[in-house]
Amino acid sequence: MALPAPLHGVIPPVCTPLDPRGEIDTASLARLVNHLVDGGVHGLFALGSTSEVAYLTDAQRGTALEAVIKAADGRVPVLAGVIDTTTPRVLDHARTAAALGADALVATAPFYTRTHPREIAAHFRHLRTAVDLPLFAYDIPVSVHSKLSPSLVRELAEDGTLAGLKDSSGDEGSLRRLLTALGGRTARRTGSAPEFSILTGSELTVDAALLAGADGVVPGIGNVDPAAYVRLYDAARAGNWEQAAAEQERLVALFSLVDVGPETDMGRSSSALGAFKAALHLLGVIDRGATAFPQRPLSEEAVAEVGRRLMAAGLLPRRGG
Amino acid sequence: MALPAPLHGVIPPVCTPLDPRGEIDTASLARLVNHLVDGGVHGLFALGSTSEVAYLTDAQRGTALEAVIKAADGRVPVLAGVIDTTTPRVLDHARTAAALGADALVATAPFYTRTHPREIAAHFRHLRTAVDLPLFAYDIPVSVHSKLSPSLVRELAEDGTLAGLKDSSGDEGSLRRLLTALGGRTARRTGSAPEFSILTGSELTVDAALLAGADGVVPGIGNVDPAAYVRLYDAARAGNWEQAAAEQERLVALFSLVDVGPETDMGRSSSALGAFKAALHLLGVIDRGATAFPQRPLSEEAVAEVGRRLMAAGLLPRRGG
Amino acid sequence: MALPAPLHGVIPPVCTPLDPRGEIDTASLARLVNHLVDGGVHGLFALGSTSEVAYLTDAQRGTALEAVIKAADGRVPVLAGVIDTTTPRVLDHARTAAALGADALVATAPFYTRTHPREIAAHFRHLRTAVDLPLFAYDIPVSVHSKLSPSLVRELAEDGTLAGLKDSSGDEGSLRRLLTALGGRTARRTGSAPEFSILTGSELTVDAALLAGADGVVPGIGNVDPAAYVRLYDAARAGNWEQAAAEQERLVALFSLVDVGPETDMGRSSSALGAFKAALHLLGVIDRGATAFPQRPLSEEAVAEVGRRLMAAGLLPRRGG
Amino acid sequence: MALPAPLHGVIPPVCTPLDPRGEIDTASLARLVNHLVDGGVHGLFALGSTSEVAYLTDAQRGTALEAVIKAADGRVPVLAGVIDTTTPRVLDHARTAAALGADALVATAPFYTRTHPREIAAHFRHLRTAVDLPLFAYDIPVSVHSKLSPSLVRELAEDGTLAGLKDSSGDEGSLRRLLTALGGRTARRTGSAPEFSILTGSELTVDAALLAGADGVVPGIGNVDPAAYVRLYDAARAGNWEQAAAEQERLVALFSLVDVGPETDMGRSSSALGAFKAALHLLGVIDRGATAFPQRPLSEEAVAEVGRRLMAAGLLPRRGG
Repeated sequence: MALPAPLHGVIPPVCTPLDPRGEIDTASLARLVNHLVDGGVHGLFALGSTSEVAYLTDAQRGTALEAVIKAADGRVPVLAGVIDTTTPRVLDHARTAAALGADALVATAPFYTRTHPREIAAHFRHLRTAVDLPLFAYDIPVSVHSKLSPSLVRELAEDGTLAGLKDSSGDEGSLRRLLTALGGRTARRTGSAPEFSILTGSELTVDAALLAGADGVVPGIGNVDPAAYVRLYDAARAGNWEQAAAEQERLVALFSLVDVGPETDMGRSSSALGAFKAALHLLGVIDRGATAFPQRPLSEEAVAEVGRRLMAAGLLPRRGG
Repeated sequence: MALPAPLHGVIPPVCTPLDPRGEIDTASLARLVNHLVDGGVHGLFALGSTSEVAYLTDAQRGTALEAVIKAADGRVPVLAGVIDTTTPRVLDHARTAAALGADALVATAPFYTRTHPREIAAHFRHLRTAVDLPLFAYDIPVSVHSKLSPSLVRELAEDGTLAGLKDSSGDEGSLRRLLTALGGRTARRTGSAPEFSILTGSELTVDAALLAGADGVVPGIGNVDPAAYVRLYDAARAGNWEQAAAEQERLVALFSLVDVGPETDMGRSSSALGAFKAALHLLGVIDRGATAFPQRPLSEEAVAEVGRRLMAAGLLPRRGG
Repeated sequence: MALPAPLHGVIPPVCTPLDPRGEIDTASLARLVNHLVDGGVHGLFALGSTSEVAYLTDAQRGTALEAVIKAADGRVPVLAGVIDTTTPRVLDHARTAAALGADALVATAPFYTRTHPREIAAHFRHLRTAVDLPLFAYDIPVSVHSKLSPSLVRELAEDGTLAGLKDSSGDEGSLRRLLTALGGRTARRTGSAPEFSILTGSELTVDAALLAGADGVVPGIGNVDPAAYVRLYDAARAGNWEQAAAEQERLVALFSLVDVGPETDMGRSSSALGAFKAALHLLGVIDRGATAFPQRPLSEEAVAEVGRRLMAAGLLPRRGG
Repeated sequence: MALPAPLHGVIPPVCTPLDPRGEIDTASLARLVNHLVDGGVHGLFALGSTSEVAYLTDAQRGTALEAVIKAADGRVPVLAGVIDTTTPRVLDHARTAAALGADALVATAPFYTRTHPREIAAHFRHLRTAVDLPLFAYDIPVSVHSKLSPSLVRELAEDGTLAGLKDSSGDEGSLRRLLTALGGRTARRTGSAPEFSILTGSELTVDAALLAGADGVVPGIGNVDPAAYVRLYDAARAGNWEQAAAEQERLVALFSLVDVGPETDMGRSSSALGAFKAALHLLGVIDRGATAFPQRPLSEEAVAEVGRRLMAAGLLPRRGG
C-alpha cells in the first residue's frame, strides 16, 4: 500500500513472540498485530530493535516480516527494519523485505565499523537507489554508536533520499533543531514544508515531540497499550495538550515495568523486552513471554511485578497477575 | 532573600563580561543583570557553566558573584555555582558564596575523579549540612561525565538534602520519569507534591519540560533574549501551549548562533559562549564580547553573522550588525 | 588440521581483495595467502575486521573463506571470523565456516544490543557446544562497545569454552593482568599453565605482548610485511628483545601509512584498510586496492604516499611507486 | 635543583596521608618521602591524581607540596601537579608551586569544559611562558576526557614548550608511535634525539614502555614497593629484559590489591587509593590509611585482604596483617 506522506501517527515496533524452540510463533504474532491494529495504530514497524531483530536469523526475519504483513492485511502500512552492519548486507535484507511486500524500509547508519558522515550519506543514497521503497533513517546511537546530525538528515530529506526519520537518539534538542530547520510547526502542519516524516522513538516524551511538530511515534511499550498512545496522539492533533500530557504521564508510569529485571543480573535489553513480552503474555495476546537467546529470562517474581504494574495501570483484571 | 519554594520561572546563567586584561568587567556585568531583570526573569544563576566558571580564578569568582548580587539588589534571588572537583574544594566555594550573600548554591557531582553514586549522595549531604543555604544539584554529564540517576535525585529530594535540580543532562526521558516519580503534573501544580524545584537546562525544549511539570528553565541564550523565555514561561503557565511552542521555536532558530564558530577551528564552548557574548555586545549590554583564555575568539565574520541572526530575530536594528 | 595448543605465532587477518564489481577477487586472494605463507606466518585469520567482514554479504563471506582455505591448502591453520550481532546469527556463520573446513572460530561479544556479562558468557558457551571447533573470543571494544573482562576470559578459559583470545582492546594493562592470572610468563612457556592461546591484535606493541607471555599476534599490517612480524616473533622466542624491539619500531614507522587518508574526508576504516590494500596492490600481490562500499577510496595522492612509505621501508623498488 | 634532561627513572606520585580531621599528616608524608627515596626512586611527583589532588583544598595542596619538598631535601627533584579546569586556575597553582620550590610542573589539558586541540596547545604554551619551570603534559583521558594526540605532543616537544609527557592514557600503541616519531629507541638512548622525557603512568607495562624507549615511570603502586620498580628500571637499563619482565609480573600480581574494595560499594578511586594507603599503613610508613571525603573507606575485611596480599608479595612479616 502507498504510505501516507508524511507517514504519521502511532507506529509501534512489533515484538516478535517466540515458541518453545526459539522459533517465531506466527500465531501469537498475528494476534499481536490484531491487538495493535484494534488499538488504532497507524502503521507497524517490523524487525526493529524492539522486535529483537538483532537476535533473529535471516530465516526468522523473513518469517516474522511475512507474518506481520499477512496479519496486517493492508489495514495499515508495514515498515521493515533492515538492520545490518553495512550497505551490502543491508541490501540483502532490503531486497527480501521488498519481495515480501513491505511498504517501506528502515535502516540505520553502518555499525561495527567506523564510518564517516560522507560514507553514511552514500550508504542511504545507495539503498534508496537500489530498492524502490520509501526509506526511513533510524537514528539509534545507543546501538550503532554514531549520531545522525540534523544537517545530514536535512540534506537527505531535501534531496529525496529519505522519506522520514525514526529518531531514537534521545537527543530532543537536536530533534527540535531539525524540526525547526525542516519548516517548523506551522509549515509542517499546513503542508507547506517538505513531506518528510519525523517519528520519535522517545516514548516518554511523545507529547513534547508532537508539540514541536513531529509526525508520530514508534513506542516500544505501545505493544502493551497501543490505545493509550493513540489517545495521546489524537489529543495532540486536537490541540488538547493537557490531555496529551496526562496520557503521556500515565504511560511514563507504566513504562517503569522495564526496570523489573535488576541491572546486576541482566542486560537492559533482557529486562525491557522481557517486560514487554511478559505483559503481552499476561494480557493474553501472545502465548509465551520468552526473549531470544542469550538474553536472560525474567524471574517469576519479576513477571509477577509486571502483572502488578499492569493492574495499577488498569490493563489487567485482578485475577490476571 | 528567601527562595520561593519551589523556585520557578526563568533563571538565566549569567554571562561574565571580561575587560581587556581578562578581568571581570563589573560595570558590564551590572548592566547585564539589569537587562535580565528588566526582561522579567525570576532569578539569576551566577558562576554556572555559561558564566565560564571553569575559567575564573577564585578571586574572579568572588568578584563576579559579588557584582551580580549587588546589581540584583534583592529584586530576584541569586543562585551561586560552586563548581569544583570534590567536596572539600566545593566547600571552600560554598562558604565564600554564603559570605557574599548568595541565596542558594548549585553543585555538580564530583568530577576528574571516578565517584560511586553512594559517594555522590554523601557529597551533596555533606554540602547541605556544612553550609546553611538551599542546595541545587546540577546534573551536567557533558562536563562531569556521570549522570545523576532519577532514583538518587529522588532520594535526596525526599530527605530534604536538595531544594531542587538543574537538569542539563539532555536526557528528557529520564527527566520525565523523575517528574512523574515526584508527584506528576497535577500534584506538582496543586502543591500536594514535595516542594522540589526542577529546572531544565535544555533550552531548546522548555515548552516540553513545562508541559511535563518542570518548574522553570536556566537558559544560556536567555542572556540574549530573556523576555522571550519569560513569554514562553507565561504562556505555559496560562496553559497556552501553542503559543509556548511558537516562542520556543523562535528561540530554537535564534539558538543557531552558537554554530557561527566552525568546529574545525574552536571548541563548542568558544563558539557558543563567544556567540552569546558577541550578541550581548552588539545589543549594547556589555562592552566587549571576549571569552576567557584559552577559548579562541570568534572571527569578525562570525561576529557579523551573529549580528545578522539577531536582526533576523528582530533583536537588533539594521545599523547594529 | 588440528590447531597447535596453544596456537602461537603470527596469524594475520587476511585482507579481502575485490574485483571491479565489488565481488571477491579469489585469484588475488589466493596470491595474498601465498604471500603470507611464504612470509612464514603460522596461521591465517579469515573474515576478521581487517578482512572487511562487516562489509561482506553472507555469500561473499563464504566465497572468501573457501578461497583462503583452498589456498592455504593445509600449510597453516585457518581461523574463521563469525561476526554478527548475537548468538543465533553467529551460529549460522559458524555452521557455514565448519562446513567449509575452517580450523577454528573467532567470535565477538554480541553487539548492537546491550548485553550483560552473564549473557556474554552464555553466548560463548552456546557457540562452543553447538559447533565442534576450537573457539577464540575476539575482544574488540572499538567495534562492539563492550570489553571482555579478564575475569570473564579466565572463567571461559578454565572451563574449556575458549581455546584462546584475540585481544584487540588496546588495553595492555588488562592483558597483562590476564596473562599473569593465567599462569604468568614462566609457567606459560614451560607448559605448566593451561593451553590457552593469547594473541594480541595490538600490532604496535607486539614485542611487549610477547615479553609479557602472549603467544602471538594478529597484525593487520602483517598483510603488507608478514616476514617482518615473523622476524619479530622469532627474535622474541629467542629472547633477543633488542632485536624484537627494533623490528617492532620499523613496523611502527611503516604503520603510519594508515594515516594517508585525511580524517576530515573519510572514516578511519577507509584510510587504514585502503592503505593496506593499496600497498598490496603496489607490491603486486593483489590486482586492485579497492575497499568495500560505503568506504571511500584513497585519492591518487594518498596512494602515491603509500608507495613512498613502502619505499622508505625497503619494501618497494624505486620504480614501484 | 635542575632536572636531569631528560628526566628518567622511577618517579612515584606521592600519596597524601591524612590525619583524623582530614588534614595533611605532614609527619607521615615525610616518612613516605623517605620510604620512597630510600627505595631508590629518581624523583617525586606531588599533587598528582594518586596524591588525591582533586580532593585537596588549595591550602592543603600547599601544605602537602611544601612537606614533600622539605622532606626530599634536594635528594631528588620534586614535580608538582597543577591540576585544575583551565589555564587561569592552573596558573594560580603554578605560581604557588614555583614559590614553594617545585622543580617542575605537571599540567593536564583543560577539563569540565570542551576544548579544541588548538586551545589545548595555547594552554600549555601560556603556562610555560608565565612560569619559569620545566613543564610536563599529563595525558589522562580517564579524568579529563580528552586525549593528547601524538602530533600535538610532538609539536609542543619540538618547540620547547614541554620538557616531557606523563602518559596515563593507557594507549600504548599511541605512545609507541610518539616514541618512534621522537627519534626512536636508539637515537633516544644515544642522546641524538631531542631531550624530551616520556614517562609512562601505565604501571603494569613498564617493561614494555622502557623497551620501546620511554625514559621512566610514574607508578601509583610504587608508593608501596618503590624498590621493585627501581629493580625493574635498572634491569631494563642493563638490557636484562627477562628480569625486567619478571619484576613487572610480580608487581602486576601485587597490583591486584586495588580490587579489594568491591565495585558495587565504592568508586575505583576509593578502592585503589584506599588499598595503597592501607598498605602503607600496614607497612608502618604512614599513621592512617584514610582517603579523602567523599571516597568511602575500605572495610576491615578489605584491609585484611590488603595485608594478605602484601604478605604474599613478601612485603610484610606474618604478624603484620
